[in-house]
Amino acid sequence: MPSLPTEIDAGRERLVALAMAMVEERGGQGLTMPELALRAGIPAAHIARYFATREDLLEAIAEAWFRPKVAAMEDVVASDLPPRRKMYEFFARRFRMACESLRADPVTFRLYMQLGEEHFEQVRSYIDLADHYLGTIIAEAMDEGHFAGLDIDTSISLVNQMLMPYCNFNILEMIIDKVSEEKLARIVDAVFDGLSGQDRGAAGVTGLRAA
Amino acid sequence: MPSLPTEIDAGRERLVALAMAMVEERGGQGLTMPELALRAGIPAAHIARYFATREDLLEAIAEAWFRPKVAAMEDVVASDLPPRRKMYEFFARRFRMACESLRADPVTFRLYMQLGEEHFEQVRSYIDLADHYLGTIIAEAMDEGHFAGLDIDTSISLVNQMLMPYCNFNILEMIIDKVSEEKLARIVDAVFDGLSGQDRGAAGVTGLRAA
Repeated sequence: MPSLPTEIDAGRERLVALAMAMVEERGGQGLTMPELALRAGIPAAHIARYFATREDLLEAIAEAWFRPKVAAMEDVVASDLPPRRKMYEFFARRFRMACESLRADPVTFRLYMQLGEEHFEQVRSYIDLADHYLGTIIAEAMDEGHFAGLDIDTSISLVNQMLMPYCNFNILEMIIDKVSEEKLARIVDAVFDGLSGQDRGAAGVTGLRAA
Repeated sequence: MPSLPTEIDAGRERLVALAMAMVEERGGQGLTMPELALRAGIPAAHIARYFATREDLLEAIAEAWFRPKVAAMEDVVASDLPPRRKMYEFFARRFRMACESLRADPVTFRLYMQLGEEHFEQVRSYIDLADHYLGTIIAEAMDEGHFAGLDIDTSISLVNQMLMPYCNFNILEMIIDKVSEEKLARIVDAVFDGLSGQDRGAAGVTGLRAA
């Protein structure tokens, strides 16, 4: 019977790994607590020692899936790179991981995307964390004079929109042949050299006559 | 019995309108040729005078759905606006139509998106046409010195990626609260003032140390 926190943690890790294997074999619907207990070789009642509910288990799966992406974000934010390089690496490292996962096993990748859509509250906290880190990079860029006239929240939103193909992995599969790290770099440079709060003529005039 | 081309055209238009009403009531699967004939009050065999196959009918439905969007693109491209304003209007007018459709009736909007995914070859020709028109705007911008070092095809791809939330209507529903014409204008200005083929530092160094 597990008693020390480390034993509980080790047990949770093992069950998460088994649960992820089940998801990859049968999809998210095939993941039930009794089946997981059977697979783990423990009495069904013991699962509750590790995960009180199926939602807790799904949260732990999401955490495991996002863990290397969160580590990549934290490494980038803690680095001594200039803001422009930070923003590139911030998106490029996660984009590379997602492309590798998708290319290695499209079916499993699709399953995790589907699991995320069905349990969006677990994904939400990851998105909020990514926005928080992106905000720190944007604040550093602002200190250098970038994004004049924009507040941090609007900048976060605009940067996420301009880089959507590189951070919204739900749509990665339909555009995988058109995205590249080279294009990502061109867009990050455009963000730094072109994005500000000033209207420079795009929306200046109503109607279809030149001013 | 229809004989003149205009009678055939009028008959086709009427059947397309009826078919779209059926799609809106029951989804794409509910649209069959015998049901359409019944609804139109004509013998089932007569449908073939207007549409040889269900695919022909779906193509006509896609054409009808895209028609106002194509007209908007053609108006913008033919206008005497400067390229920056053209690109804004090119995206803004279709974005506005899509937002209005989605807000007016999310279920129907979703049905058309689904119909498009199931019959992508019909959507493909619309996307190719949009890329063609975007290419003419980009060529005009290049004449003014924008997008230095990029070829037209790469520029089309990069602009579509930076404006994905405003032209990929499949994902509009999940981001409708975050997109706006104001943000679209800021991104188009960033495209014109920030996008070029030159590496300005985003991807310049490998690893997490500053150069």
